Formats: sequence, C-alpha cells, structure tokens
Amino acid sequence: MVTRLIVATQQREQFIDVTATVTEALAQSGARSGVVTLFVPHTTAAITINENADPDVTADMLKGLSEIVPRAASFYRHAEGNSDAHIKASLLGSSMQLLVEDGKLQLGTWQGVYLAEFDGPRERRLWVKFASD
Amino acid sequence: MVTRLIVATQQREQFIDVTATVTEALAQSGARSGVVTLFVPHTTAAITINENADPDVTADMLKGLSEIVPRAASFYRHAEGNSDAHIKASLLGSSMQLLVEDGKLQLGTWQGVYLAEFDGPRERRLWVKFASD
Amino acid sequence: MVTRLIVATQQREQFIDVTATVTEALAQSGARSGVVTLFVPHTTAAITINENADPDVTADMLKGLSEIVPRAASFYRHAEGNSDAHIKASLLGSSMQLLVEDGKLQLGTWQGVYLAEFDGPRERRLWVKFASD
Repeated sequence: MVTRLIVATQQREQFIDVTATVTEALAQSGARSGVVTLFVPHTTAAITINENADPDVTADMLKGLSEIVPRAASFYRHAEGNSDAHIKASLLGSSMQLLVEDGKLQLGTWQGVYLAEFDGPRERRLWVKFASD
Repeated sequence: MVTRLIVATQQREQFIDVTATVTEALAQSGARSGVVTLFVPHTTAAITINENADPDVTADMLKGLSEIVPRAASFYRHAEGNSDAHIKASLLGSSMQLLVEDGKLQLGTWQGVYLAEFDGPRERRLWVKFASD
Repeated sequence: MVTRLIVATQQREQFIDVTATVTEALAQSGARSGVVTLFVPHTTAAITINENADPDVTADMLKGLSEIVPRAASFYRHAEGNSDAHIKASLLGSSMQLLVEDGKLQLGTWQGVYLAEFDGPRERRLWVKFASD
C-alpha cells in the first residue's frame, strides 16, 4: 500500500521538513523492520536529507543551489521559465530509502527528511511505501 | 530475478526516455504491488526522472548540466578526457526506486524515466528488479 | 537487520572505496537474491558509485565538485563553516540500492561504491540492509 501525503509549500524555493509526517505514516502502517521508500511525483520538487538543527543550513543550501543553477540563462528554451527547477529536482532526486528497525525510522542524529520545493508555492504530493522484512 | 535491458544512445549527451521499456519489463514480471529498483551499471551514465511533455526541458537540463560541469578543465587528470561525464553521473545517481500498485508504475503526471548518457554514443545497460510486497 | 559499519576518513574531502566492506557484510548475511540498501546517517558525507580503475577519476570528481560548490561564499550563514559539505552531501545523496544475484553484488565492470567525505577527517557510519526476494 502506498500512503499518499500532501505537502503545501509557501515559497518558490523551500525545504520543508517532512520527518514527522513520514514517522507518523510509518507508525500507522504498523511497520517494525524493513525499508521505507519515499517518492515525489513531481519534476520541479525533490526529496533529500540534510541537517535539521540549524535552519541556516537549509537556507545556505537553497542559496548555494541557486548559485550553481541560475534561474535565468540565455540558453533555456522551456517556455514555462522554470528550467532551473527541473535541473535542481534531478540533482537532488525523486526517490529515497530509509531504514526501519523496532518500528523506528533509523536516521542520524542531525538528519531531517526534506521535501525540496523549487517552483512553488504549490500543493505537492509525497508517496510513502513501507516494505517489511 | 534481474531483467537486463540494453539501451543504445546516439549522442555524447542525451536523455533517453525508458519509461515504456521499464513498464514492459514490469508487465512481463507479473508484478502487482511493490517497488522496482532501476540500476545503471556504468560510471558515465545515470538514471533520473524528469518532465516528458516538453522536449525543451531535457535539452535545457543537458545544457544546464554542461554549464555546471565544464567538459574541459585545467585540473582534470583522468586521461580519457571524460571526467565531466563521471561527475554528472554521480550527481544524478546510479539507482532509483519506483512504486508499483495494481500492476502499474506509479509516476506523476509529467514524469518520465530517463537514462542519462554523458559519454556516448554507446550501448548501455539498464537493470530492473521488482520486489513484491 | 541493519549491519552498522564504521568508516574512518583521513582528509577533509575524500572518496573511500567501501565495495569490499559491503561485499563482506553481504556474505555474512547469507544473502542470495534481493536488494541491498546503503544509508549514510550524516549530513556532510554521502554514498555514490563511480570508477574504481583509475584513481584520477575520484580525484577529478572531488576537485570538480569543489569548483561547483565553493568552500567559501559571502552568503553562507551557517556558523560551522561547512555549508559546502552539506550541499555536496545532498547532491550525491544519502541512500543507494544495489542488486544481488547468486549471492553476488551486481556491479558494472568499472563500478566501485564510495563513501564520499566532505567534512573530515572523521569516523563515519555506513548502514547496510539486505532485503531478500
């Protein structure tokens, strides 16, 4: 079974911490041990893990990514004007796996799971699937 | 069982839409519900998801990636002259997971699955494995 | 069951080949056919696949990534001064899947699995989980 979540974003570019949402979906599935697959069914948003302690980290990441992939470039042809968002989405990726043991998501001390919005604000979907051992 | 597919590329850099190929491999496996793992056994090609509606998107992505990772750089030491392709391959990644429900690949409306060629033209391999619930 | 490995790094930025370590963990699990998930529980290190034949490739990759993501930037706010490492970690990713058949890790001829250190030297953890068919 795929749990289908909705995540509302508020800005064009934003990292939304979905760790609690995924943890809750996991608890409702009764998962004890296995692997969780997260999947973002969009082409201008992604899923990633990074630090959840200092909010400056995700702010620096968004700014850093925008320096790497400029919003405007003379060679962009895509008429919607969001080619940068498509590139960033592929750089971070659409799918991710997390380990589960004793019913708990196994994350490092400073790790949070983020939906990365690159062309918001929008209502985004996040799909969660647990595979038991 | 791993389904081993061949994908022929025609250019040095190219995004090849493999969605139909993966869908067919899935149908032949009789898969109903679970997770599909895609794996590219190369170091200068990758697997990614992006928009399949407007071909300008993948063109912009290839051009954008080439601006980020220059083909020539004074510090590249690797004698084959394809260090840019190795970097791009790691940025997009070698493996990906897709969800399956009711025998159908679960993708977003605009999502296509692409083998990303960065050092072609070549005959590339794409491995597909379905894990049932 | 999650196998929890320790990988010691010696430099600030380094690709450590963990292929043999993962292969050994797999052998001890008695795995025959399935999928291995690798997970790095850190926010300034990552997991990636690239060429294991010519060491110039990983050297070029590290140098290339440092050109893409500068170590110092006027807009970085994070006080630890390692925002570049956080960005690189998300670009390469925290999780990866490898296929297993006949008890053997299925890798391409030139592929090696690397823990990518971007803020070492440190003692890093690498988690390995095998899911049987």
